Amino acid sequence: MTHTTLSFLKGHGTENDFVIIPDPDNAIELPASAVAALCDRRAGIGADGVLHVVRSAAHPDAAHLADRAEWFMDYRNSDGSVAEMCGNGVRVFARYLHHAGHVEPGDLAVATRGGVKQVHLDKAGDVTVSMGRAELPEGEVTVSVGEHTWPARNVNMGNPHAVAFVESLDQAGNLYSPPPFSPASAYPTGVNVEFVVDRGPRHVAMRVHERGSGETRSCGTGACAVAVAAIRRDGVDPAVTGEPVTYTVDLPGGTLAITEHPDGRIDMTGPAVIVASGEFEAAWLGETAFA
Amino acid sequence: MTHTTLSFLKGHGTENDFVIIPDPDNAIELPASAVAALCDRRAGIGADGVLHVVRSAAHPDAAHLADRAEWFMDYRNSDGSVAEMCGNGVRVFARYLHHAGHVEPGDLAVATRGGVKQVHLDKAGDVTVSMGRAELPEGEVTVSVGEHTWPARNVNMGNPHAVAFVESLDQAGNLYSPPPFSPASAYPTGVNVEFVVDRGPRHVAMRVHERGSGETRSCGTGACAVAVAAIRRDGVDPAVTGEPVTYTVDLPGGTLAITEHPDGRIDMTGPAVIVASGEFEAAWLGETAFA
Repeated sequence: MTHTTLSFLKGHGTENDFVIIPDPDNAIELPASAVAALCDRRAGIGADGVLHVVRSAAHPDAAHLADRAEWFMDYRNSDGSVAEMCGNGVRVFARYLHHAGHVEPGDLAVATRGGVKQVHLDKAGDVTVSMGRAELPEGEVTVSVGEHTWPARNVNMGNPHAVAFVESLDQAGNLYSPPPFSPASAYPTGVNVEFVVDRGPRHVAMRVHERGSGETRSCGTGACAVAVAAIRRDGVDPAVTGEPVTYTVDLPGGTLAITEHPDGRIDMTGPAVIVASGEFEAAWLGETAFA
Repeated sequence: MTHTTLSFLKGHGTENDFVIIPDPDNAIELPASAVAALCDRRAGIGADGVLHVVRSAAHPDAAHLADRAEWFMDYRNSDGSVAEMCGNGVRVFARYLHHAGHVEPGDLAVATRGGVKQVHLDKAGDVTVSMGRAELPEGEVTVSVGEHTWPARNVNMGNPHAVAFVESLDQAGNLYSPPPFSPASAYPTGVNVEFVVDRGPRHVAMRVHERGSGETRSCGTGACAVAVAAIRRDGVDPAVTGEPVTYTVDLPGGTLAITEHPDGRIDMTGPAVIVASGEFEAAWLGETAFA
């Protein structure tokens, strides 16, 4: 048995958690099987995804962005598939760059397959990431759990969301299965469903059923969709008032602050934590798993 | 923010997984809150429990065993509570002692709150642990899932089990909730329920609903209970034949070999793997979390 080891860190943003693989020179091959093994919560380290940290200039998917962003977030889903972007992931990615001494607190550009993302690290540990703009398709949508049916706001953050304001988060039930929605034509490839209650002025709490994942502890685009829906319900749309507005969104895994600007840009701010660092015993993955 | 770190390893036995805290001199305080933080699968490392590795002579709960077993498995459940014993845990514990260079392959005694356990490490990585004897209370028991009801064998391995032979493991359904059993008097404090199918001669496969935990990837005492029930069903009781008998038990997390001896002693053999080692960033637990 050979003893290959792989350096890793583990971190999370509002309990959306990641295995971080530092690899500035893009020297480590990460086949889907290796990513899945790392993310396995019992037989591996366990995570929602892998943040492969590579200099943009060293990665074929990001070399064209190297003059705008030194670092590339090569993001992988827990099954090993490639993803364009992950809002909580990019916050943890930025926190790691600071942890490793690569960047100072302040503004930072991060290359992703979804383009260059603007990030701000504050000294206390919070990280802000620009999440783009929301689209609000017309048309009435409803979501259901058991006997309850609620009207929902259709919000697209690059992925589709249905935001329902409910009386109590308990009404969402166990969320073992995707909440039915109507009309089916609203979301031909399924939808992320958010259930929302008010906690105070510009302060809400939510639970989310993520398409393909079930209930999760946190969903960055879901928190943005919820804030966008609440802002319109409350009549404080920044495009109308000319003033940015910030909503506090409590999720099961922590709290995010979502700011919408008059031009529609949405910023997400919240904690990002490095939990551990170590060596992964890659021997049992097979000798070819890592280059 | 102080930067306290805590050395850890992560390992698993048939996907029953553990954070290992090496602490020969019992110098590390591990309050329940710290254990729960380590075992949190999103905000911590993530595990079913903690194996605190201490020399028996250095721990008040094990000093009286120090002449029989050099090392004490101070086992903690994922919520921080103290447990007497964990069969998969003691296999991973033994594998760690070898990994750290404390012991050579061969026979080994491990102190636990449930007494001294005899363990055997083979050079290939499998670990055998003596699991004691089964009790088989008289009386008919049934378990149900949905419309199905099956007769079950009542087996006590220190904890209670109801073993049902079914046609297909799919019949157990999603196991989100504890399968009802009858009569209620058979298990006044609840029961672990095993669903079993045959895979071949002396080879079965199982799923388990663990009391208080739901469906798990592996359950050492459950695998023993299943083998004991199958051995009696097949008419090869070692107390009658005078010959030890070994059954192969496939669990979702891997395969165990269960041997019953003519005197009733049960040995459990299976893989135990060290997956990773590292440093846990204890700063966010607060300065008093670790002594």
